[in-house]
Amino acid sequence: MEQEKTTQTAPYVPETDRLTELVQAHKLRELRETYQDFQEVDIAEWLGTLPQDEALVAFRTLPKEWAAEVFSYLDPDKQEELITGVTDSEMGAIVEELYIDDAVDMLEELPANVVKRILRIASPETRSLINQFLKYPENSAGSVMTAEYTHLKASMTVPEAIEHIRRTGADSETIYTCYVTDQKRYLEGVITVRELLLAKDDQSVGDVMDTNVISVNTLCDREEAAKLLSHYGFLALPVVDEEKRLVGIITVDDALTVIEEETTEDIEKMAAILPSDKSYMRLSVWELWRNRIPWLLLLMISATFTGMILTTFENALAAQVALVAFIPMLMDTGGNSGAQASVTVIRGLSLGEIEFSDILRVIWKELRVAGLCGLCLGAASFAKAMLIDRLILGNAGVTVLVALTVALTMTLTVMTAKAVGCTLPLIAKRLGFDPAVMASPLITTIVDALSLLLYFAVASRLLGL
Amino acid sequence: MEQEKTTQTAPYVPETDRLTELVQAHKLRELRETYQDFQEVDIAEWLGTLPQDEALVAFRTLPKEWAAEVFSYLDPDKQEELITGVTDSEMGAIVEELYIDDAVDMLEELPANVVKRILRIASPETRSLINQFLKYPENSAGSVMTAEYTHLKASMTVPEAIEHIRRTGADSETIYTCYVTDQKRYLEGVITVRELLLAKDDQSVGDVMDTNVISVNTLCDREEAAKLLSHYGFLALPVVDEEKRLVGIITVDDALTVIEEETTEDIEKMAAILPSDKSYMRLSVWELWRNRIPWLLLLMISATFTGMILTTFENALAAQVALVAFIPMLMDTGGNSGAQASVTVIRGLSLGEIEFSDILRVIWKELRVAGLCGLCLGAASFAKAMLIDRLILGNAGVTVLVALTVALTMTLTVMTAKAVGCTLPLIAKRLGFDPAVMASPLITTIVDALSLLLYFAVASRLLGL
Repeated sequence: MEQEKTTQTAPYVPETDRLTELVQAHKLRELRETYQDFQEVDIAEWLGTLPQDEALVAFRTLPKEWAAEVFSYLDPDKQEELITGVTDSEMGAIVEELYIDDAVDMLEELPANVVKRILRIASPETRSLINQFLKYPENSAGSVMTAEYTHLKASMTVPEAIEHIRRTGADSETIYTCYVTDQKRYLEGVITVRELLLAKDDQSVGDVMDTNVISVNTLCDREEAAKLLSHYGFLALPVVDEEKRLVGIITVDDALTVIEEETTEDIEKMAAILPSDKSYMRLSVWELWRNRIPWLLLLMISATFTGMILTTFENALAAQVALVAFIPMLMDTGGNSGAQASVTVIRGLSLGEIEFSDILRVIWKELRVAGLCGLCLGAASFAKAMLIDRLILGNAGVTVLVALTVALTMTLTVMTAKAVGCTLPLIAKRLGFDPAVMASPLITTIVDALSLLLYFAVASRLLGL
Repeated sequence: MEQEKTTQTAPYVPETDRLTELVQAHKLRELRETYQDFQEVDIAEWLGTLPQDEALVAFRTLPKEWAAEVFSYLDPDKQEELITGVTDSEMGAIVEELYIDDAVDMLEELPANVVKRILRIASPETRSLINQFLKYPENSAGSVMTAEYTHLKASMTVPEAIEHIRRTGADSETIYTCYVTDQKRYLEGVITVRELLLAKDDQSVGDVMDTNVISVNTLCDREEAAKLLSHYGFLALPVVDEEKRLVGIITVDDALTVIEEETTEDIEKMAAILPSDKSYMRLSVWELWRNRIPWLLLLMISATFTGMILTTFENALAAQVALVAFIPMLMDTGGNSGAQASVTVIRGLSLGEIEFSDILRVIWKELRVAGLCGLCLGAASFAKAMLIDRLILGNAGVTVLVALTVALTMTLTVMTAKAVGCTLPLIAKRLGFDPAVMASPLITTIVDALSLLLYFAVASRLLGL
């Protein structure tokens, strides 16, 4: 049932082997022409696979107008490698061509001496812009916005505005959403190129623009900003400073990247890993270890409680050894049931489908699902104990009463686990903590202890331990 | 350390209470004007909260040009409610205004009699387009594309092309990426409005267009298509049929939705839940139960192996009861370690950061991380056993040899778990199965059994069980 859907037609894969042959044969004129058949991002990926000297040759052969974009797609390591290889004037041209957000991304990853060199090479305007952007806190809207947007005046006629875009648009990251500002850079309205093109020639920008502009503050969380853009299906979202002046825009492709990175962070947290900005292949063994060991240690120590509960009941266990065989099943099923509920709620919170105010509805829903699952699994575990453990495996210790004990504990454990699993993420959210931490590993640890307590409580009633 | 980043400025929240007041006071003229202050998607969300009669009044008060878009954002239940309330001619206007992909999405969720009525109302052209689109398989590129794109001829001059867009663009879902086709609808090139606007008036579309067009087939997986669009930062991706003729486009906002839905599916699978198209709040208790019980049952039965291993060693356990207390800690830490590795690899595969060909590099990296984590946790568990269990809790059965047994088992378990955790998703991918299924619940079940086998193997050597 889990077979992946067949892909009838494989998606486009760039054939960069041709490029490698041309670099190695030093056929640079042909290489330059062949670049035309590729997208910038694919050329960047290909450059990343070349040794330093070949990468430098290949990079210098790029058409001038492509160099900055290809550069912006490179891994920080490769960027650093190329920077040390090119001259100041080549580097200067690239820095001036880069969009500010890409330049800032790059500078944040480079060693201090390289950053110094680049800032020295940059023009005064670029340098001051970069310095301003470097000040926005990590993960803020300001840190992912770009300063290259198109702005218009409300008094322009439609043909004037189109003419203005045609003249100045080359430097903007997107021209499709234009912002209308007054002298003090306050946002007055927003107008899309589509609206401009579909408007009549005698209309003014002020007539056509939408004055109900949705914007975010530079200090707003970048994930919130990206979700807002996605929610409204915008191609760009304006970012304003504390005085409500327009300072930049977030474009849809950057929002996509933000959403992807934040989702990866959520998934990592759900797996008890401290999140990281780098991709797996770029993380060193030490970094991976550092991200993984804290939760492992914490959860390991927490398992002491479960161990203590087991120890407390050791004498009882010695009297009724058959019970031991069912401990893994009860703990695992409890953990899985709780994880299902918690992960569902965490994802719902992240997508905005669930709010804290839904807490009672969520708990009521989960309790009913838990009841169904609990009864079902209780019955199944009774059947399993009697059929598999007693009949097939011949474990004579598994009496009807033992099987009943297991079944009843199973039902109670599943119900408790789902209740805990759906509640904890909501409470975490309410307290201002990240709900993603309340996922399977933590829930499992809690449910393990609870399931054992339930097991012994039920066993002491039914079996008189 | 897990406190969420503070949001200095709350993002925009629409104040729809005003709208509710106006509907309830039946101030429809004022309502109509107030709509201007809101985005279509927010009006749709607000409509979803109204009772049927008020929703119908509010919907009919919408400016005509907004009705279709607001309608497309509604939940299927609300769409059905409104459809039964409006006249055939009102419904006809909406169907004709809807983009084909939205109309098809709607029809797929509606009951048969309502679908019949809508198809009867629709114009013959719309009806035939809808019927064609309904045939594309679920989760294919064809099922998410739209037919309303802008196409140009290579022979047009730049001003002619701009004029053409201004005349015909109102019906296209996006005008920003235009496709150049020949008489037989074969794709010849792609040109953006940006390139058109920045081009010189005496150039032709053929001069400026990019002939290296990246497209997908209608039967390509929708997730692959969305990732391709995201990879290249496109605003739209062309979709072609088996004969390579252009039949539609996928726009960036639809790609964002696809990526979000597919990620949710991955997360659900990782939590042992059968994925579902509906959001949590719209799923009934029975549907939630149906999605969750299969894996719970399967994993519960699989835990029999772990139970069998425990049973086999029951006599040994009775002789050295102190060992029992450490079973939960060993199993949990093993499960968590394996889950970290598997979830990391699953996400890496999903983002395209890891390929099957990286398998040896991944295993080598994971083994080193596993070695570090294993040694660290082994030492910590030795310290914990001696300090917490023996000294503080006064469990005299925990001798140095028992603590050593636990520590050595811990190290071996963590290493085994990480090796299993990183390998299984890669093998699943290779065999054409979805790697996401190889996440914590399944890994935990496997690692539980392995950790017990290791525990008893080590114990029999060190303690001579």
